[in-house]
Amino acid sequence: MSANEPVAKTPPKVSQRGRAAAPPANSNADKKEVPEFEPFGLMPRGPPPLVEFLDILEVDMLQTQSGVNKPHHNTHMYANDRLIVRRGQEFQLKVTFDRPYKPSEDKFAVEFVIGSSPQFNKGTYVPVFVTKERQSPWPGRVVDSTDSVVTVGITPAPDCIVGKWRVYVAVTTPYGIRRTKWDESRDVYVLFNPWAPADSVFLDDYNERLECVLNELGVIYHGAFDDVAERPWNFGQFDYGVLDACLFVMDQAGMPITNRSDPIKVTRIASAMLNSRDDDGVLEGNWGGDYTYGVAPTSWTGSSEILLQFSSTKRPVCYAQCWVYAAVFNTFLRCLGIPGRVVTNFFSAHDNNGDLRTDIILDDKGKIDKLRTVDTIWNYHCWNECFMTRPDLPLGFGGWQVVDATPQETSDGMYRCGPASVLAIKHGQLCFQFDARFVFAEVNSDVVFKSRNRDGTLTTVKVNTSHVGRMVLTKSPGQDTRRDITDHYKFKEGSPEERTVLEKAEEYGSEREKASPPKGDVELVMSLVEVLVGDSFELKLQFNNTSNQTRSVDMYVNGNVVYYTGVTSSEFLFKSPEVTLGPKKAGKEVVIQVPAKDYMRKLVEQANLHFIATGKVKETGQIVSAMRVVTLHTPKLTVEVSGTAKVSEKMLAIIKFTNPFKFHLEDVYVRVEGPGIMPPNFKHYSLVTAGSSVTWTEPFYPRRAGPTRLMASLDCAALRQVYGQTELTIEP
Amino acid sequence: MSANEPVAKTPPKVSQRGRAAAPPANSNADKKEVPEFEPFGLMPRGPPPLVEFLDILEVDMLQTQSGVNKPHHNTHMYANDRLIVRRGQEFQLKVTFDRPYKPSEDKFAVEFVIGSSPQFNKGTYVPVFVTKERQSPWPGRVVDSTDSVVTVGITPAPDCIVGKWRVYVAVTTPYGIRRTKWDESRDVYVLFNPWAPADSVFLDDYNERLECVLNELGVIYHGAFDDVAERPWNFGQFDYGVLDACLFVMDQAGMPITNRSDPIKVTRIASAMLNSRDDDGVLEGNWGGDYTYGVAPTSWTGSSEILLQFSSTKRPVCYAQCWVYAAVFNTFLRCLGIPGRVVTNFFSAHDNNGDLRTDIILDDKGKIDKLRTVDTIWNYHCWNECFMTRPDLPLGFGGWQVVDATPQETSDGMYRCGPASVLAIKHGQLCFQFDARFVFAEVNSDVVFKSRNRDGTLTTVKVNTSHVGRMVLTKSPGQDTRRDITDHYKFKEGSPEERTVLEKAEEYGSEREKASPPKGDVELVMSLVEVLVGDSFELKLQFNNTSNQTRSVDMYVNGNVVYYTGVTSSEFLFKSPEVTLGPKKAGKEVVIQVPAKDYMRKLVEQANLHFIATGKVKETGQIVSAMRVVTLHTPKLTVEVSGTAKVSEKMLAIIKFTNPFKFHLEDVYVRVEGPGIMPPNFKHYSLVTAGSSVTWTEPFYPRRAGPTRLMASLDCAALRQVYGQTELTIEP
Repeated sequence: MSANEPVAKTPPKVSQRGRAAAPPANSNADKKEVPEFEPFGLMPRGPPPLVEFLDILEVDMLQTQSGVNKPHHNTHMYANDRLIVRRGQEFQLKVTFDRPYKPSEDKFAVEFVIGSSPQFNKGTYVPVFVTKERQSPWPGRVVDSTDSVVTVGITPAPDCIVGKWRVYVAVTTPYGIRRTKWDESRDVYVLFNPWAPADSVFLDDYNERLECVLNELGVIYHGAFDDVAERPWNFGQFDYGVLDACLFVMDQAGMPITNRSDPIKVTRIASAMLNSRDDDGVLEGNWGGDYTYGVAPTSWTGSSEILLQFSSTKRPVCYAQCWVYAAVFNTFLRCLGIPGRVVTNFFSAHDNNGDLRTDIILDDKGKIDKLRTVDTIWNYHCWNECFMTRPDLPLGFGGWQVVDATPQETSDGMYRCGPASVLAIKHGQLCFQFDARFVFAEVNSDVVFKSRNRDGTLTTVKVNTSHVGRMVLTKSPGQDTRRDITDHYKFKEGSPEERTVLEKAEEYGSEREKASPPKGDVELVMSLVEVLVGDSFELKLQFNNTSNQTRSVDMYVNGNVVYYTGVTSSEFLFKSPEVTLGPKKAGKEVVIQVPAKDYMRKLVEQANLHFIATGKVKETGQIVSAMRVVTLHTPKLTVEVSGTAKVSEKMLAIIKFTNPFKFHLEDVYVRVEGPGIMPPNFKHYSLVTAGSSVTWTEPFYPRRAGPTRLMASLDCAALRQVYGQTELTIEP
Repeated sequence: MSANEPVAKTPPKVSQRGRAAAPPANSNADKKEVPEFEPFGLMPRGPPPLVEFLDILEVDMLQTQSGVNKPHHNTHMYANDRLIVRRGQEFQLKVTFDRPYKPSEDKFAVEFVIGSSPQFNKGTYVPVFVTKERQSPWPGRVVDSTDSVVTVGITPAPDCIVGKWRVYVAVTTPYGIRRTKWDESRDVYVLFNPWAPADSVFLDDYNERLECVLNELGVIYHGAFDDVAERPWNFGQFDYGVLDACLFVMDQAGMPITNRSDPIKVTRIASAMLNSRDDDGVLEGNWGGDYTYGVAPTSWTGSSEILLQFSSTKRPVCYAQCWVYAAVFNTFLRCLGIPGRVVTNFFSAHDNNGDLRTDIILDDKGKIDKLRTVDTIWNYHCWNECFMTRPDLPLGFGGWQVVDATPQETSDGMYRCGPASVLAIKHGQLCFQFDARFVFAEVNSDVVFKSRNRDGTLTTVKVNTSHVGRMVLTKSPGQDTRRDITDHYKFKEGSPEERTVLEKAEEYGSEREKASPPKGDVELVMSLVEVLVGDSFELKLQFNNTSNQTRSVDMYVNGNVVYYTGVTSSEFLFKSPEVTLGPKKAGKEVVIQVPAKDYMRKLVEQANLHFIATGKVKETGQIVSAMRVVTLHTPKLTVEVSGTAKVSEKMLAIIKFTNPFKFHLEDVYVRVEGPGIMPPNFKHYSLVTAGSSVTWTEPFYPRRAGPTRLMASLDCAALRQVYGQTELTIEP
C-alpha cells in the first residue's frame, strides 16, 4: 500500500512536542543561566527611592585541598580544583560584600542550580538563607561575619541530587532579585556521603568505609577456588577527569537529573550503562580471543584510562570481560561516594535464566556428550556489591546489594542486573526487585549428570549440589588479604536453613533437579595440581570402593582447554583407562601424564585446563565422575622503582620480563600505572624471543604523598594476564 | 595513546566464541534438521540379521478448520493452514505405516522439535511414546489402530514452550533410529491455553475468556471521564500472517526459545519489544503532530496491518501513541492465547517516576506560572491487562497484570513496564516486580497547587487528591458497554483502606505531598460542556461562599489547546474577571464566552481544550482553582454495506463523510477494515472542500461466517479521530 512506502525509509527523528511540556533535564552538562535580575512585577512609577542595596564583590568557595572543606568531606584526594563536598554535611564559603552585612536589613541567598530548567519543587533549584525566618531545604547559617566578609555554613540535604551544581549569590531588593553572574570556578560537586547517618549510603564500619570509598588500590580474585590467583587493579576514582567522566556516564544514559539523588536508581542505570548493549555504554564485551581492534581485557591495569576514553570519544571502549566491567563499575561507585567492592564467585552458574540446574549430558557408556552439553559454569565471575538502604523493599533488605554490569547475552537478554539485596538472596526472597533470582542461581545451581537413552530421553544419574557458588571472595578492608563472604550469600551446605531457603526459592519459580539417584559405592576424586604454564604434569585419579565386591570401571578422561566462562576451546587429551578395584579398596590411584606440548599450542587466554573424568561401574551401572580445573600459573613481571620517593621528585620504574618458553612471544603489550604517581602508560614489543628478557625503564614524578603502588601487566595472544607490582611510600 | 586509536574506529562485530558453548536458540525461525538415521554405536559385523522394521508412509496432522483438533482447541478462526493447538490439551494425528502396527514389537515415537540445537533437557526436543513402559513429557496414547493406520493422541505439557514446532515420526530399530524427513506442512503451532486449569494463563470465567482471547472486535475508550469517547479497533489476531508476526516479534527480541513457556517473560519482553526504543521494536512513537513519514496514530483502525508490516520490513512502523501500543499489544496477547484487554485510565499521572505528586505552580497573584509548570497529567492513558498466575511472587498476586508498551521517555528511561499485579497495586505492595510503583503513581498521584514566593521558594496552597486516576475503563465481556474497573486499582476515595494503602506505598518510597493547607471558604466548580468541534460555546464558573463575610476574588481563566498528554500547545483564551461574593452566597455564576474562531485555527490532534481557573481571595489569601478538559466531539463517518451477507459473496462498503466546517480539509485519509470480511484498505483525498461530501464505495468478499463489523476512520491534519462503523452478520 502506497501509504506505507514512506515508512520503509528511515523516518526522521520524531519530535516529542506533544509528549512533554519541557525537554527532560537529563544532562548535568546542561547550563541555563539564571537571570541576573528578576523584577517583582512592575517597577514603581517616578524616580526609585534612594535605598542602597548590598552588592557582592567576591565569592570564595574555600576549595583548596587543604582548606576547611575538602579534608572534612574526605574529598581532598580528587585531582580536581573545584569544591567537592558530600551531602548531609556542612561546608563553608565566604562572601565579600561592598559593606558590612546587616542581618536585620540585608536579605541574601546562596543559590544552587543543577541541569536545565531548574525547579524548586524538583530539587534542582535550591536557595539557601542564613536567617531563622526563612526556611531553606539546605540549612544555612552565618558562621562568621567580620567587616564585609561573611562566612556561610551550608548543609546540603542528605537526600539531595548528586552531581555538579552551579552557585549564585542573590540579593533581594524591593524591586527584585539581583544575582552574581555564573562563574564556572564556583561550581561545586555534591557527592553521596557514607559518613552521614542520614544518607541512604551511610556505612557504619570505619574500616569498610575507608576501603570501599577511599581505596584506589584493588585486588581482583580469579583462578580456582582452591588455587586462587590475584589481579591488581588501579580503580583511580580520584584521578584527574574521572569524576566528570562518571557524571557523563549518567548523562549519556539520559538519566533524569531528579533521579540522581537515589543510589538505587543510580546503580541500576549504571549496571545497564557500563556495558555497551542497548545504550552505547562504556565497555564493549569480547570473549572471542581476537582483540586486534582494542585492548585485550586481560591487559588493562586500571579504570581511569577506560572512563576517560569513554567520556572523550563518547563511544564504547574495547574490550571487557567480567572483571573489567566490575572494576570500572567499582570506580564509578567509589568516585560518587557509594560504598562499593568487587566480589568473585567461583564456579558461577550462568545464562540459565534463574533456574537452578546445569546439565552435563553423558552417552549410554558414561562418556561425556560434548554436542549436547551446552550449559556452562564459569570458573569464576566477578560482580559488584554496593551498600545502601532499600526503602523500596520491606524492612531488613538494606545493606550490601549485588549489581552486575556484565551483559547476560544468552539468558534473558538482561543487560542490567540489580541492585539485588544480598540478604534477600541468602534467604531466598527472590520476589524482591531487582533480579535477585538470577544472582541466586549463580551461587546455588546444582550440577546434574544425565545419561542419554537410546530413545532420546535423559535419565539423571548424579547430582552435585556443592560445586556451584563454591566460594565468594572479596578483598579485606585495609589489607591485601582475601575475605571469604560465601556465608553472606548462602547458609552452610547441607544445613537445615539451606534446605528451607532452596524450598523458598522454588516457591518463587526457580526450578531445580528433583531426582536423587542412589549414591553408589565407588568414589572418585581428582587431586589438585599447581602447574606453571609450559610445564608437563601428572593428573591423579583416586578411587575408593566401599563395597565388599570387586568393582571395574570404564573411565573416560577428557582434558580440554577452556575459557574462564567454562566454554571448551579444544580437547587436547582423551584417555579411557579401565580400572579394577578390589573389595573395600581405598585410595587406588590412576596417574595420567599431561605433557606440556599437548596443551601449549592449544592454549587460549587465561590458560585454564578443564579435566572431566566420567565412567560407568560395570557391575552396578553407577556413574562416577569428577571435575577439576587447572589454572596454569603464569610467569611474573618484576617491577622495581629507583630514586627518592618524594612528591614531584623524578623516579624511575623498571619493569622486567623474561620469556620462559621455548617459543617466541609476538605483539607484546606491557602496561604500567600507579595511583597518584604515574598515569596509565604502555610499551609495545613486536617480538620477545624464546628465553630472552626485556626491560622497560620509565621515569615518573609522584603527584601525591602516602603509600601507593606501581602495577604492571604483560599481554600477548600466546600469554595473557601476567602481572607484577611493587609498593612504595611517597614522602611529602 | 596510539593503542587507543583503533578503538576510535567502530569495532567489528565481536565474536562470542569464548562466551557460550552453543549459539543461543533465540529464534523460532531456526530450523536444524534432525538426522534421518541415528546409529546406535557401531554396526554389527557381517550381514545384518533379516529383521523387518516398521516404515512410515504418511503422517496426517488432522489440521483442517473443521477437523477433530482445531474446533476443540478454539483455533479454527486462525487464517492459517497448519495445525494450531493449545498446550495442556490433547490433539490427534494419524500415522500410516507400511503394515499393521504391532504394539508388542514396534517401537515408534512422534518427535517435536523447536529452534536450533533442540535438547531434551531444555524442553526443545520432545519425543512422545504411545506405550506405558516409556514415559514421555507429553503424554501419548493410541486412540485407534485400524490396519496400518494409527491415530495417536498427544497432550503437550501445560507448561511447554509456545511457538511453531517441527514434527517427526521416528522408528527405533536395533541399529538406530529412523526418522521421517521434515515436512513444513506438518509444523504445529502450540499456544497458551486459558481453557486448561493446569496452564498458568487459565481463566475460569467463560465470558471473560471468550472476550479476552477470541474477540477480534475492540473498543478503546478515550476523551474525558465524564464525557467518554469510543474508538473501534480491529485486533485481527486471527488474520492471515498475524500469528507468525507475533512469533517474529519474540525472535526479533532475541528471546531465548526456552523462555517462551513463561507468560511472565513473554509479556515482559513484549512490553519492551512493542516500542521501538532500545531494540528496533514494532512501533515508533510520535507525539509531534507531523506524521508525513508514516500513518497518523489516530488513523489506524486495526493491528494486523501494523504487525504484518513490521514482520515484512523488520523495522519500526510509524506512528503510535498510547492506544496504538496497547491495541497492538492486545493482539499479540490474544493471538498467543494469553487473556488480554485494553484499559483506559482517565487523568493519568505520568513521567513522575513513581512519586505521587504532580505540581502546578502559581505566581504570587494566584495566576498559573506556565514556565515553571512542567508536570503533565495525561487526559487518559491506555495500557494492557493480561491474566496469569505469578509463581515469582508470594501467593495472592496472580490474576490480572498490568503491562504497558508506551515508552516512558521522560521518567526513568523505562521502555518496558510490567507485568505488575493489579492486586499488588490496589494494596500498595510496590516492592513486588515488575514496575508496580510506576503504575501505582499513574492512578494515585495528588495534584498540588504551589504558590511561588519572591525568594524562589514554593508554598503549597491546595492539594487535590481525587483528580488523578479518576476512572479506569475497559470493554465489558460479550457486549459493547463500558466496564468501570477503578475499584480493581484503588479503594474508595477517602476510605480508611485507601489511607492505609497510601501509607504502605510511602513505606516503599513513593513520596506524596505532606502539607495540608486549610480548605478555605470559597469553592469553585467549572461545569461540564459537550461541544462539537467548530461550535462556539459558554464556559460557566460557579462560586460558593460559605463564610458570613463578603469575598472578592481576582480570577485568572486560561484556555489552552492541549494534547491528550496534557501538554499545552497554545493559549487561545485569557480572562481575568474580578468576582465579588456576598456572605453565604451560593451558586454565583460567571459565564465566559468561547468563540469557535478563537480555538479552531489553533487546534491540534484530538482537539482537547483545557481550561484552568485560578485566583486568590483578597480577604483571606485563599487560592481557589478548578480545571476542566473539554474534548471536542468530532463529526461521524457513516458506514453502510449492501449486498447479500454470505461467505465469498460480493458486497459493497459505502463510507460517507460531509465536511461540516467553513474551511477545506486537505490530505484526507479514509481507512476501512473488517474482521473476517475486509483486509485493511484506505483511500486518499487531496481536498474535501468546506461543506462538501465524499463517498467511497468499495467491494469486499466475506471470508468467514458470523457476526462482525466494518470499521472506518477519517484523518487529516486539521481533523483527527473521526470514526464510523456498522455491524453485520455473515451467513455461511
